[in-house]
Amino acid sequence: MQLTVLKIGGHTLDNEKESARFLADFASLTMPRILIHGGGKIATKIGEQLGIESKYVNGRRITDEAAIDLVTMVYAGLINKKLTAQLQKHNCNAIGLTGADGNILKATKRPVKEIDYGFAGDIEAADVNVEFLSLLLRQNMVPVLAPLTHANGEMLNTNADTIASATAIAMSTHFDIKLILCSEKKGILRSLDDDNSLIAHLDEAAYIKLKDEGIFTGGMLPKLENTFAALYAGVKEVWIGDAENLLAHFRGKPGGTLIALKEIKH
Amino acid sequence: MQLTVLKIGGHTLDNEKESARFLADFASLTMPRILIHGGGKIATKIGEQLGIESKYVNGRRITDEAAIDLVTMVYAGLINKKLTAQLQKHNCNAIGLTGADGNILKATKRPVKEIDYGFAGDIEAADVNVEFLSLLLRQNMVPVLAPLTHANGEMLNTNADTIASATAIAMSTHFDIKLILCSEKKGILRSLDDDNSLIAHLDEAAYIKLKDEGIFTGGMLPKLENTFAALYAGVKEVWIGDAENLLAHFRGKPGGTLIALKEIKH
Repeated sequence: MQLTVLKIGGHTLDNEKESARFLADFASLTMPRILIHGGGKIATKIGEQLGIESKYVNGRRITDEAAIDLVTMVYAGLINKKLTAQLQKHNCNAIGLTGADGNILKATKRPVKEIDYGFAGDIEAADVNVEFLSLLLRQNMVPVLAPLTHANGEMLNTNADTIASATAIAMSTHFDIKLILCSEKKGILRSLDDDNSLIAHLDEAAYIKLKDEGIFTGGMLPKLENTFAALYAGVKEVWIGDAENLLAHFRGKPGGTLIALKEIKH
Repeated sequence: MQLTVLKIGGHTLDNEKESARFLADFASLTMPRILIHGGGKIATKIGEQLGIESKYVNGRRITDEAAIDLVTMVYAGLINKKLTAQLQKHNCNAIGLTGADGNILKATKRPVKEIDYGFAGDIEAADVNVEFLSLLLRQNMVPVLAPLTHANGEMLNTNADTIASATAIAMSTHFDIKLILCSEKKGILRSLDDDNSLIAHLDEAAYIKLKDEGIFTGGMLPKLENTFAALYAGVKEVWIGDAENLLAHFRGKPGGTLIALKEIKH
């Protein structure tokens, strides 16, 4: 059976109109699916109002005690429940969860080495509660996961992309997985500032060739490395694209980048 | 089969030590159970930091747009997830939910009459998703419900006592229900300021007699009226008492007030 694991970023959620459109599109899909959301910008904004400074090292949030309370409020409360209530309105039986709920994602608190990331949780596929997520899917429910895990009685902050790929890999033992990473870009581009340089299909051979040519720069390379790690670990295909092209993609229209070890023609 | 529906108030949750003790006690119980929590004071405190004023009419919060965002953050985020993570630590498989999640509590937004309560949701037993809660209980999970419901894509603020009694009544079609209302008081008192005036057992006949004598004053009368409404609607028994006497009660020791239509001797 097919399962779609879809990650939506803060970029779409920050914009009320884009968010509403995405939710209507997502709700109109009918296949089993899991939604994972981010939401960093909203947390930063509310943190400012509360006098909680957002600190980052190497692009990763330092989650001290005030910050974990902040992101627990914003991710698990505000964002997760708004998404869930709006999906329910569209007759999509969403259930908003964090990693603590039903022990879905039991993490390891990141060990302190050079940097103390605070309440940050690291997870891998083995930490995902496949049985419980499968049970919810059998009820035609749509799990909506906030980027929060837990360990030892504490909530932990965890990157939404990491949760998406760990969940996709873990669920691949029970389902044929399509992992969707909605991005701010149109997809994987040959040239970062040129939307017309979209790569529509990418298989392993083409990826290795283009990587050797040094085409993938900036954040593109780690994203693709994670994508291929997921494919090597059992995920069938990955689509990276703009949320506004999501429905078009499911209708077989061009847009975004479809990635598989061997090219899939839809 | 027996099911315990337990409501814990903000009074216990506001105090770290009392909250930790309650959670350890609650986690040590083994029967099927549902926890419903309040949390008003914490919301008021964080609201002050965010410049959101808490407004009340007749003891009921007026939930404007800023206030519903606030309580969604605090109830569904901060409080609900801390409780859930801590119960998980005690090996209690808690799952924190609002009424939107899995459509557990679909409310009616309170109609505007003399007072506009804003984003306030009214529910009754028929609004409780008995099937899904029963499914979770069969998985040995412990649903932890925040005092939030939903309607028409919006989160709505709903009194935790109301959710507890509606849930208890609704679940009574499938289970023998014990409803527990943890209070700041030792139980039902003959004289509000005298802890030694505890009424240990109360049945329908004694309740009617004492009510006619005008014994129940202040908030005690509506609490008892709601309690007997739940008993008339199918709930087997109600225990009202201090959270610190919870375990003692389950061990058959005195403490708190046990209420049933006909006196139960344990």
